[in-house]
Amino acid sequence: MNTQLPIDTRGSPSAANASRRRFLQNSITAGAALASTGALAAEQPSPGHQMAAAMQAAIKACLDCHSMCLQTAMNYCLEKGGRHVGAAHLRLMLNCAELCQTSANFMLSNSPLHGRVCGACAEVCEACARSCEDIGDLRECREECLRCAKSCRSMT
Amino acid sequence: MNTQLPIDTRGSPSAANASRRRFLQNSITAGAALASTGALAAEQPSPGHQMAAAMQAAIKACLDCHSMCLQTAMNYCLEKGGRHVGAAHLRLMLNCAELCQTSANFMLSNSPLHGRVCGACAEVCEACARSCEDIGDLRECREECLRCAKSCRSMT
Amino acid sequence: MNTQLPIDTRGSPSAANASRRRFLQNSITAGAALASTGALAAEQPSPGHQMAAAMQAAIKACLDCHSMCLQTAMNYCLEKGGRHVGAAHLRLMLNCAELCQTSANFMLSNSPLHGRVCGACAEVCEACARSCEDIGDLRECREECLRCAKSCRSMT
Amino acid sequence: MNTQLPIDTRGSPSAANASRRRFLQNSITAGAALASTGALAAEQPSPGHQMAAAMQAAIKACLDCHSMCLQTAMNYCLEKGGRHVGAAHLRLMLNCAELCQTSANFMLSNSPLHGRVCGACAEVCEACARSCEDIGDLRECREECLRCAKSCRSMT
Repeated sequence: MNTQLPIDTRGSPSAANASRRRFLQNSITAGAALASTGALAAEQPSPGHQMAAAMQAAIKACLDCHSMCLQTAMNYCLEKGGRHVGAAHLRLMLNCAELCQTSANFMLSNSPLHGRVCGACAEVCEACARSCEDIGDLRECREECLRCAKSCRSMT
Repeated sequence: MNTQLPIDTRGSPSAANASRRRFLQNSITAGAALASTGALAAEQPSPGHQMAAAMQAAIKACLDCHSMCLQTAMNYCLEKGGRHVGAAHLRLMLNCAELCQTSANFMLSNSPLHGRVCGACAEVCEACARSCEDIGDLRECREECLRCAKSCRSMT
Repeated sequence: MNTQLPIDTRGSPSAANASRRRFLQNSITAGAALASTGALAAEQPSPGHQMAAAMQAAIKACLDCHSMCLQTAMNYCLEKGGRHVGAAHLRLMLNCAELCQTSANFMLSNSPLHGRVCGACAEVCEACARSCEDIGDLRECREECLRCAKSCRSMT
Repeated sequence: MNTQLPIDTRGSPSAANASRRRFLQNSITAGAALASTGALAAEQPSPGHQMAAAMQAAIKACLDCHSMCLQTAMNYCLEKGGRHVGAAHLRLMLNCAELCQTSANFMLSNSPLHGRVCGACAEVCEACARSCEDIGDLRECREECLRCAKSCRSMT
């Protein structure tokens, strides 16, 4: 576990950085941060790539759904009032945002138990999507929730 | 506050969604979620756009720095061991990830007090960048921290 | 939903505070914050009290387990090094702390979907307890995890 | 850093647990989790005890304020509606809950930068206390916020 490869402790900084880059690229959870800078675009397909791609997609879906639900609840819904601040609806929007964040964090940290959290997240996202549909003018939020639910289900 | 514009309660779903879209596009914190799908790309410049753009950039910088620090700490550093799991370093990486998350959440929810949180975040990011530099092979993480620190400073 | 009882909008501040106090005491998730000040001690048994008590206990168990795991991981384990910073162990301690926090937040906000999150939390707590047992000198942390797991299971 | 005392690797489980207990009792952030079980009650005064006691109090104040704000916002305010779900007020309650959580986590993990986060937290708590006072029937929440603000200020 604590073994340090010589190349990293004695190598030049750029060699060490290359070593770390290889680690991240091979890591099952690699792409989340790198993907945002397009660094993964040129990567070669590799064994385990399929799984890595699915998890990267799920991390991105969770982060996007978190941002969408939190921002919509705390800005659009609160400003609009009425049924948009109904207890059941606003609670669900904020619960959904929080669990998406936690699911993303479990996957980013490569937790072997991420599947259980993603399963719970998928259910909350689906409930939130239904609530957005009932409200009526939250189509984008509903779609983000459905996308995240589907991606999370693929992790269970 | 609780006033509902007629167009939203009586309008067609697509009219209501268009109304919500306008709200998000005009909102100071708008772009975070939308930006990730490129939906803002075609937007016209508008009053307040400058500020919105800076905050959108800060939200993105915080989310990226959160993902990078958490993923690097929980995967690369923990697997590598040695000085990568030194108490001061790992603590800083994880603290940085958490405060970036909280700063992003304050901005996403349009908190008038986001500047204070961003100020604290900038300091933690700078300390984390220094620690990454000392370790030596965490260049990408260091750069993400410096980018986030700069973006957060512009919010204070 | 949005009905305001006359007593609250027109009553004296103390009457309004009494009204709010009654709400919290009758609320299914009431006791968490109040319990810490002993305010619930003199409460009369009431219908639904059994459920409220179980959820209050689960909230407290999650908050205690969160504090214990985070503090132990970030101080004792990081300072001690060796197998205490093994990747699988430290990851589990920190994942456990985070999910306990999220479970507590779902219960504090009275989410109808708290059972799903508590179910996932129970599993993570049990895995963390096993890891603490393997390490050997983390008995208190293991006991806190087992207590939380049991309490969370009762919510599913 | 990674030095393991012989007593812990070779000692009996109870000796190892006693060693860990001593670490926690001497740790600057010790008391948070232990305090909840009363384990610190019989502790002897010791050098650094003053500081440890102040930080323990701040951790507890943050955790209590987090629970109180989140629970009140998501239950009492959402159910009551009207000015209780005013955008500025509800946003502040939820922002306050989140930053209290983050401040507690920084102190639980013994971050050397906890003072900056506690400073921001104190400001948000004070703003939340003022908003609770304006609403009128949120006296307990206001008092919890003021208590937390004072405790956080002592950490800066």
